[in-house]
Amino acid sequence: MNVREVIAKKRDRGEHSEAELQFLVEGYVRGDVADYQMSAWLMAVFLHGMSAAETATLTRLMVESGDVLAFPELPGKKVDKHSTGGVGDLVSLPLAPLVAAAGVFVPMISGRGLGHTGGTLDKLESIKGLRTGLEPDEFRSVLTEVGFAMGGQTAQLAPADKKMYALRDVTGTVESIPLIVSSILSKKVAEGIDGLVLDVKCGRGAFMKNEEDALALAQELTRVGNLMGKNVRAFITNMDTPLGNAIGNALEVEVAIACLKGNGPTDTMELVSTLGQAMICLADKAATWEESEALFQKALQSGEGWNAFVSMVKLQGGDVSMVENPNTLPGAPVHKDVLAANAGFVTDIDPFGVGEAVVALGGGRQKAEDSIHPGVGVRLHRKVGESCEAGESLATVLAKDEETAKQASARVEGAIKTGSEAPPEEKLVRYLVTADGYEPWLGAKTWDSQST
Amino acid sequence: MNVREVIAKKRDRGEHSEAELQFLVEGYVRGDVADYQMSAWLMAVFLHGMSAAETATLTRLMVESGDVLAFPELPGKKVDKHSTGGVGDLVSLPLAPLVAAAGVFVPMISGRGLGHTGGTLDKLESIKGLRTGLEPDEFRSVLTEVGFAMGGQTAQLAPADKKMYALRDVTGTVESIPLIVSSILSKKVAEGIDGLVLDVKCGRGAFMKNEEDALALAQELTRVGNLMGKNVRAFITNMDTPLGNAIGNALEVEVAIACLKGNGPTDTMELVSTLGQAMICLADKAATWEESEALFQKALQSGEGWNAFVSMVKLQGGDVSMVENPNTLPGAPVHKDVLAANAGFVTDIDPFGVGEAVVALGGGRQKAEDSIHPGVGVRLHRKVGESCEAGESLATVLAKDEETAKQASARVEGAIKTGSEAPPEEKLVRYLVTADGYEPWLGAKTWDSQST
Repeated sequence: MNVREVIAKKRDRGEHSEAELQFLVEGYVRGDVADYQMSAWLMAVFLHGMSAAETATLTRLMVESGDVLAFPELPGKKVDKHSTGGVGDLVSLPLAPLVAAAGVFVPMISGRGLGHTGGTLDKLESIKGLRTGLEPDEFRSVLTEVGFAMGGQTAQLAPADKKMYALRDVTGTVESIPLIVSSILSKKVAEGIDGLVLDVKCGRGAFMKNEEDALALAQELTRVGNLMGKNVRAFITNMDTPLGNAIGNALEVEVAIACLKGNGPTDTMELVSTLGQAMICLADKAATWEESEALFQKALQSGEGWNAFVSMVKLQGGDVSMVENPNTLPGAPVHKDVLAANAGFVTDIDPFGVGEAVVALGGGRQKAEDSIHPGVGVRLHRKVGESCEAGESLATVLAKDEETAKQASARVEGAIKTGSEAPPEEKLVRYLVTADGYEPWLGAKTWDSQST
Repeated sequence: MNVREVIAKKRDRGEHSEAELQFLVEGYVRGDVADYQMSAWLMAVFLHGMSAAETATLTRLMVESGDVLAFPELPGKKVDKHSTGGVGDLVSLPLAPLVAAAGVFVPMISGRGLGHTGGTLDKLESIKGLRTGLEPDEFRSVLTEVGFAMGGQTAQLAPADKKMYALRDVTGTVESIPLIVSSILSKKVAEGIDGLVLDVKCGRGAFMKNEEDALALAQELTRVGNLMGKNVRAFITNMDTPLGNAIGNALEVEVAIACLKGNGPTDTMELVSTLGQAMICLADKAATWEESEALFQKALQSGEGWNAFVSMVKLQGGDVSMVENPNTLPGAPVHKDVLAANAGFVTDIDPFGVGEAVVALGGGRQKAEDSIHPGVGVRLHRKVGESCEAGESLATVLAKDEETAKQASARVEGAIKTGSEAPPEEKLVRYLVTADGYEPWLGAKTWDSQST
């Protein structure tokens, strides 16, 4: 076998054997297959696609390129969640401790923000001292003690994915469903999970702009996940407007704390509870949606979720006083309000515009190597559909200086539209997707029928 | 502009602007565009193609990436020939001196053999002392004095092509018509020519296996050549059987000498005269095919073509006594005959099999860095359609040792088929292709109608 032949096979629309994919992935990690050969193959995959079986094999080889975590000593099924990335989406922060408090072990490996979407690790690190670069032993000990742990992808976890993703990023081969699926699933499968709940965002602020693309990605994620022996469900959720009421790293930690204390924003809590209940079900802790709701609510209302979060912060080296007193979280010196020109209703908030404003404030990254400012961001005082008075503040920009405050507030102003009539309400959770197909999300009815 | 966007444009079937191609080619030569980015783009071009206008722009940029030769001090139009490569195809060796003797300046830059096809430079270098690595000044002085010169692609000639070809070779992106066209034409246009005759081989022993593919390549070569302001004609010629009666480096020099002395193999001479007359016409030395035939025959029969060849050998440092006494050309110690099992006719000689036998003998290269043996090869005593007696030698293998002689003669034996009936005769020159279309080749009638 030689590399040229393997590349030529995909170029000519062939289906790869396991041996060919193994030759390619192992060779690439070893350095026998050059970057320029891998990128030619990636472009051929981008243009001709891969079958679910090929993608599952590729994913498995990417998992096997590094360490695979396993927690046989911990009882029950391990479950995690992955989101394709949105604006104001801090769901992982309250979700993991709540699900852990419901008795499910959640070994959560997260990423950093890039472009207009935020990343869980950046948010967590706005808590002074909190370490996310956990080695496997520490990750295991936090998981064992608290029921969940939150770390980043180490060099040993799916290194093939790390190397291939960096290459895709500079060769125009990012937006390919089989390559996205293998990248997402390889990192998650390497965590040693049994089940996975996916939040595939759909809309202007998401990677997938329309339902068709979001469903196609979700369908392939669940199919390939199933072929790999994992129990996978995907939700298609709305990202045509920011989630929650704050965007920025420390700001979102503050919202996460509110969620854990039972007073989070309605939309954020709807998403946390939906994803959380699905995780509880996939872990076989509940037989029906109603049962999982009871477990989830108990974890929330008893304060056990909150306690788990505080324990994780403590064990991962974070300053517990900071989460107990969120007003001590990093802030920003300059606050600038975006005012409503007229009385009426907020008719639209463009998540992309708000996300880009936060990046411009220094709260996100243009390039992977950029450093970020934890305290900057945007507070939204009105959500889409809410009424406003003329001159009232619709949003506040938190900036490190006047200059960036000015730029960002202009962007936020451009992103928020008002009008005389309230727009029709949009559904947040739109579809449930399984390996067999998808259905509009109607809560218990949809879940229970899909699961039986 | 950034590289990712340019790659993504071709990935999404876009048509490149001149600025985009310039950004890519100049950036690649400078090192700002990485190999892995160029190879992703090459794969996108392989799969989505390029318009003739894009290919012409790419070709021009590849030409401009290095030195461009020009010979304004030499009178008349400069014309060259290029072949896509065959087995036993030594045409360049007698062609260039004959056309030069007819009064046309031929600045010929040739290549080396790779795989089962031979290369002009390797053949020439079997003449002791002959240098093909000519710097521009020496190339010009040989051309001026003799009317033609035979050199190799220097590092300064179309360096973008050199770098891109090396990358295509290892990334499965060789067999792409726009990329082949730009590679061929960039080297030829950089020679400072006005006209170009192309020999696009078609058949088992050629890069293009069938007429459809050969015609598509020839059509694009003539179209793009025209867009670049060059007068280009292409012939589709048969490569389902080796050309001439010997394959191997020194062996083919011997055949070339026979051609120049008026006693070359019929098929080789048919091709030399067809391509030569076309070159004479493109240089405006003859108004009709008949006139160009007269000029060509005069160059041959007067011995002026032969004299020009000898002068070139001398000026390029070669041992003239060796071409004057071809039996002093490099030979091989072991000769092994391939015998006819039965009386009858030779019905088939597979050029690929014979070419591979010569590579196995050490007369060709598997990889670009392999060294070659000038004296080894295969003499064919019978051509397809000729009769044979049982036990008669059909071919002789010339080898450096018994071991390779045995292997190669088995391959040659497998490549030659005999039968009780002579096969139907196949046409050697099949089509004439211009930028406007193609017609079956019927000699003067076709040429004169296409040219008016």
